[in-house]
Amino acid sequence: MEKTLVLSVDLGGTKILSALIDEQGKILTRDYTPTPSTGNQDIVIQEILSSSKRVLNEAGIGIDNVAAVSIAAAGPSDVRTGILYTSPNLPGWKDVPLRDILSKQFGKIVYLLNDARAAALGELYFGAAKGLKNCIFVTISTGIGGGIIINGELYSGAAGTAGELGHMVIDDDGPLCNCGNRGCWEMLASGTALAAAAKRSIKEGVESSITEFTDGDVEKINAQAINKAAIAGDPLAQKLISRTAYYLGVGLSNLINIFSPELIIIGGGLSNMGDRLLLPAYEEAKNRAFTQPYQSTRFTLATLGADSGVLGAAGYALKKLQSTAT
Amino acid sequence: MEKTLVLSVDLGGTKILSALIDEQGKILTRDYTPTPSTGNQDIVIQEILSSSKRVLNEAGIGIDNVAAVSIAAAGPSDVRTGILYTSPNLPGWKDVPLRDILSKQFGKIVYLLNDARAAALGELYFGAAKGLKNCIFVTISTGIGGGIIINGELYSGAAGTAGELGHMVIDDDGPLCNCGNRGCWEMLASGTALAAAAKRSIKEGVESSITEFTDGDVEKINAQAINKAAIAGDPLAQKLISRTAYYLGVGLSNLINIFSPELIIIGGGLSNMGDRLLLPAYEEAKNRAFTQPYQSTRFTLATLGADSGVLGAAGYALKKLQSTAT
Repeated sequence: MEKTLVLSVDLGGTKILSALIDEQGKILTRDYTPTPSTGNQDIVIQEILSSSKRVLNEAGIGIDNVAAVSIAAAGPSDVRTGILYTSPNLPGWKDVPLRDILSKQFGKIVYLLNDARAAALGELYFGAAKGLKNCIFVTISTGIGGGIIINGELYSGAAGTAGELGHMVIDDDGPLCNCGNRGCWEMLASGTALAAAAKRSIKEGVESSITEFTDGDVEKINAQAINKAAIAGDPLAQKLISRTAYYLGVGLSNLINIFSPELIIIGGGLSNMGDRLLLPAYEEAKNRAFTQPYQSTRFTLATLGADSGVLGAAGYALKKLQSTAT
Repeated sequence: MEKTLVLSVDLGGTKILSALIDEQGKILTRDYTPTPSTGNQDIVIQEILSSSKRVLNEAGIGIDNVAAVSIAAAGPSDVRTGILYTSPNLPGWKDVPLRDILSKQFGKIVYLLNDARAAALGELYFGAAKGLKNCIFVTISTGIGGGIIINGELYSGAAGTAGELGHMVIDDDGPLCNCGNRGCWEMLASGTALAAAAKRSIKEGVESSITEFTDGDVEKINAQAINKAAIAGDPLAQKLISRTAYYLGVGLSNLINIFSPELIIIGGGLSNMGDRLLLPAYEEAKNRAFTQPYQSTRFTLATLGADSGVLGAAGYALKKLQSTAT
């Protein structure tokens, strides 16, 4: 019997990852490409199509050889209708029927999930949450995404959008978010927030070696450059990472008090900073949360890294194909 | 066959409600008494016992005629171990094995639940959430309590404490809470927070008619007096209620973005203010939350009023007795 293959695409705010995945969760071929920064819908969709074509070509197969296409996209979307309501990091996207658009383009069954929810499912099917009941997945990168696993299943809520943890307000009078809200967790503790704070400080004249890691260009400052500067002893970089850890901890304490999860899985690019960022964040959460739920919460890094989204989307598609086949 | 009766006690920060409840959720007799303000554990337990005795006496029965005692208590507790970990509004209570203490005193099976979780169950079994899947119960009074219903069941989490919605931070640098955290929702949007803000303003010399409803005593200011003054047109009272509504809306927007619930049930003394408080709170939540989950969230008042806690605790005990009997 032929293997069931899924073409899985993770559409993020900064990059698109396409992958061909088999039913054991093995990635056969993959392609990375930057998300077109215009945010223009047609250009982004064309980029998804050409990235997918490269993935199929590399495997020496055509679209007819895959059972389904599964998309993990940034922003709140309804898994049942396939509509991407908005995407804080793809400005201008609003109520886009992305599933149907891509289904027409590919001539295939297409599934659409939120990227962080897909990543949570990836960790549940193939990674750190395997076999667990109540877990919270938090991914910290351009924004902060979330996925809620309850009773061993993804919790989607009434609108199919549950888990928008990055848009939990932790400072009611905080900075304005792309989503229209104020003081969202991701405005204070994401990689974007960290980089923005560094740019601001340096433009205001604060001395720092961060730009030594960006060819002297303030505009090129990102979380990696700040991390490198912090390791090299730069006081501004260290201060800003501490500040990000503080806000991260505030949000984690909320998740602990609300959910009392058995496990919180931390993923996303910013989690690569490791202990420098995460230990003080856990300490802040400990200081704020009730003792018992804090003590029964384990923290772990996502084990699937940047692949969690495509793997979760593929796993979701495989489950759906299975349940419609039986 | 004899009716199964439960003696149910709601131990709140300001009052104790004891009730004798039958298996249809009918309250046969009840007793209200203030919670001894010392917070002293023995004195509070004695008050629970004497209130219970009055309830039984009024019904003309003894403790031997009830099948179980069920306690709904303020503060995070573990429903499985019967330990009340702490009670922000009963200062000094820490890791109290309240279930076992009362079981010895009553000579009966005793169940212990958090009061807000009990109230959520009351609404699920007998009230506004009957037959629903995914609901959030929020009770606004001395503090803010919560209960999370997922897939038609109370969600308790790994430590049995899930649902501490009042201790969700909405202003990371906000006022210090009894729980040790800062900027908790209940420090900004509870009845206590409202009364404290009024006292502060009046002591600072702000003109207001609020004290006309408290015999001129600033210390007696409570939410009811502020509401009466607001109805009579007092600008300070109106301003403070608007401020409370604003903070209430911030927290509600978090619950909508996180859970995308089908229903949010609002209970507790402060909900008696009705539209004056709640409409601007819903408006603030609308401005902050994502559109789709906001639109699929209904809001409703708790239908069981102050009885929800004792009814939910009784319903919980009845379910437990049933499952152990079969």
